[in-house]
Amino acid sequence: MKTQETFRAIPGFRASGICCGLRKTTAPDLALIASDRPCSAAALFTRNLVQAAPVLYDRALLSRSNRQAQAVVMNAGIANACTGEQGLRDAETTASLVRRALALPHEDAVLVLSTGVIGAPLDMDKIATGVGTATAQLQPDGWPSAAQAIMTTDTHPKMASVRYTPPGSDTAVTVAGIAKGAGMIHPDMATMLAVMATDAAVAPPLLQEALRRANQTSFRCITVDGDTSTNDTVLLLANGVCGLPEIRDTTDAAYAPFMEAVTLLCQNLARQIAWDGEGATKQITIRVTGAPDFEAARRVGRTIASSPLVKTALYGNDANWGRVLGAAGRAGVPFDPARLRLAIGQPAQPSLELVRNGQPRDVDEERAAQIIAQKEVALHLDLGAGTAEATIWTCDLSHEYISVNAEYRT
Amino acid sequence: MKTQETFRAIPGFRASGICCGLRKTTAPDLALIASDRPCSAAALFTRNLVQAAPVLYDRALLSRSNRQAQAVVMNAGIANACTGEQGLRDAETTASLVRRALALPHEDAVLVLSTGVIGAPLDMDKIATGVGTATAQLQPDGWPSAAQAIMTTDTHPKMASVRYTPPGSDTAVTVAGIAKGAGMIHPDMATMLAVMATDAAVAPPLLQEALRRANQTSFRCITVDGDTSTNDTVLLLANGVCGLPEIRDTTDAAYAPFMEAVTLLCQNLARQIAWDGEGATKQITIRVTGAPDFEAARRVGRTIASSPLVKTALYGNDANWGRVLGAAGRAGVPFDPARLRLAIGQPAQPSLELVRNGQPRDVDEERAAQIIAQKEVALHLDLGAGTAEATIWTCDLSHEYISVNAEYRT
Repeated sequence: MKTQETFRAIPGFRASGICCGLRKTTAPDLALIASDRPCSAAALFTRNLVQAAPVLYDRALLSRSNRQAQAVVMNAGIANACTGEQGLRDAETTASLVRRALALPHEDAVLVLSTGVIGAPLDMDKIATGVGTATAQLQPDGWPSAAQAIMTTDTHPKMASVRYTPPGSDTAVTVAGIAKGAGMIHPDMATMLAVMATDAAVAPPLLQEALRRANQTSFRCITVDGDTSTNDTVLLLANGVCGLPEIRDTTDAAYAPFMEAVTLLCQNLARQIAWDGEGATKQITIRVTGAPDFEAARRVGRTIASSPLVKTALYGNDANWGRVLGAAGRAGVPFDPARLRLAIGQPAQPSLELVRNGQPRDVDEERAAQIIAQKEVALHLDLGAGTAEATIWTCDLSHEYISVNAEYRT
Repeated sequence: MKTQETFRAIPGFRASGICCGLRKTTAPDLALIASDRPCSAAALFTRNLVQAAPVLYDRALLSRSNRQAQAVVMNAGIANACTGEQGLRDAETTASLVRRALALPHEDAVLVLSTGVIGAPLDMDKIATGVGTATAQLQPDGWPSAAQAIMTTDTHPKMASVRYTPPGSDTAVTVAGIAKGAGMIHPDMATMLAVMATDAAVAPPLLQEALRRANQTSFRCITVDGDTSTNDTVLLLANGVCGLPEIRDTTDAAYAPFMEAVTLLCQNLARQIAWDGEGATKQITIRVTGAPDFEAARRVGRTIASSPLVKTALYGNDANWGRVLGAAGRAGVPFDPARLRLAIGQPAQPSLELVRNGQPRDVDEERAAQIIAQKEVALHLDLGAGTAEATIWTCDLSHEYISVNAEYRT
């Protein structure tokens, strides 16, 4: 199973992306996703204590609806965060506008996502007009437009799809989605968002479990501060239009391929976010092996991936292994420095060992320089402290990043 | 009590800083500090799992000597980290060379500190020659030369002194020291080092306790990754030359002023390190109040101070309060976002409130721009979650930082 070269629409879903004028430009800024039928809905939200109004609204909605929903409305330009009671009312009004426009029978059918400037209120007149336009333009192939409408500092829209046929069946299942996020780093345009959908039928508790598991090895493994912005949200809707029986338990034969598809999709979207980091010039993959458990491996990997010293060295094409070891050593994970092994490499090339048993190797500097000068660079650190591993995706830290983030908001 | 405008020598100590050729330039790179008498010695070391040879050597020495020492030798250019058994032997040899040059009676009298490139071995011939020169040049006023010799990417040598007369006495006590470190950020030239000395007489366990306490509100409150590099070391030697009775217990009347002097000195040196960060254009002070306890306040402050988004905004003269609240919210400290208050200010000016009760205030943008355009900027965040507070010092993140850190090692 693998993600597809071209994006596939998901049966029973329609999408659109339009401009309603929330930004200062004429770029699209309102996206709508709607299902022909009520869906099981799984969601993961930011762990930041400071949570935007749409996050609070969606949490409450999914609790009331027993994890059911039928549409998602997203806006860019305004995060609707730190906006108090008014912000909550605006999120609710936005949902109501969509529900009426789509004539959805259920009161709690519409999830709301926002990204953009913190502290500013939504212009509800523009939202009202925009919801009408977005509804009129809904179409099965509208996902790329929706992906476009939620971009902030992203340099390209992010989408991916997976299609598979469960064993013992001749019906194809589609799992696909869109995302936004500007790498480790987001200016006022805080937030990563991802909305995924499938025509599989999956019971809500199991859908939530599948999303939670897939998230562990995808969005939690990029340094997007995935668990830290005010608006971060990952959604997965399942409408069951494919006609196969509902998957209800992890022991169902249909669960494993579904889980694999969701994981592949999440990882693909997560990589797109990490590698589109502001000012990024390199796509960096950090694999940590030999850890006591997955969380330890992830923690070491994220500490390396978050280190400004490691990231600037990679930007400077410098295979500076001392910085990598230094970052690993402060991750709070126990290991014996004398057992560390570090190698650097690229897809489809044997890797070059830089450190063995905690000490530098006599390295072919020309080969090291050649490897690190490429756009894709992989680091592999073995801790020699167990059998678990994790893979982290990130980008380098460049002059352009400073420029993007030092600009005035106005 | 306050730190002094000009640096004061410490009675009974001599210092020197010379060039022994470890660097590629002719800049001084070897410093020596020697006391006329054996000293109580307190030390704090990096918490990084990857620890340089001199750190391992000093730890073992202080354990053998019951926290006594009489000299400190420091080199820049080579960190002697990730150098295995040979590194440990080199640290030991360096100490022996100094002990013989100074004709010190005790076997375990010399502490060793190194800073510079990780993974490269020390050139022991150069060290041997250098130790001879440094010994010949020892003098009471040699501290500034020593401070110069331990600089790496520092833009200026760092030293400070405090002088006070304990109550009920007419004898002045001096507490003074030198430090190095390039702010939050250190390239191959990893590490912050600080060596302080006093002519007070203080029992070794109490000296260690005083240093530990002073460190809490000084070196632990800057984003130098004070607890994270392979070589970070803070030393305090007390030789008792002032002639006052030894301070043995926290209840001694002489302890409180001594503790105050050590704290002032540590805070002064810590600020110098934080504000000399690579590429820094601003001196930033972050005060967090209303926290459940000091550690919580420190954690929130350090999360804000470490945020690339906050630091680039300050570099861009942007009073971007949303980024500050976002960073606070992911610090892992519980608080109610609806009670947050944020103000911005400068020394000797009333501060300007940007956020109250978690929501933005109508701010005089001109005044905000005027405040933030200055070289010294103070942020004050109240969590509304207790009575504890902490102050953190840091610098902004500029284009120049990327340039400094993206350069090749060679």
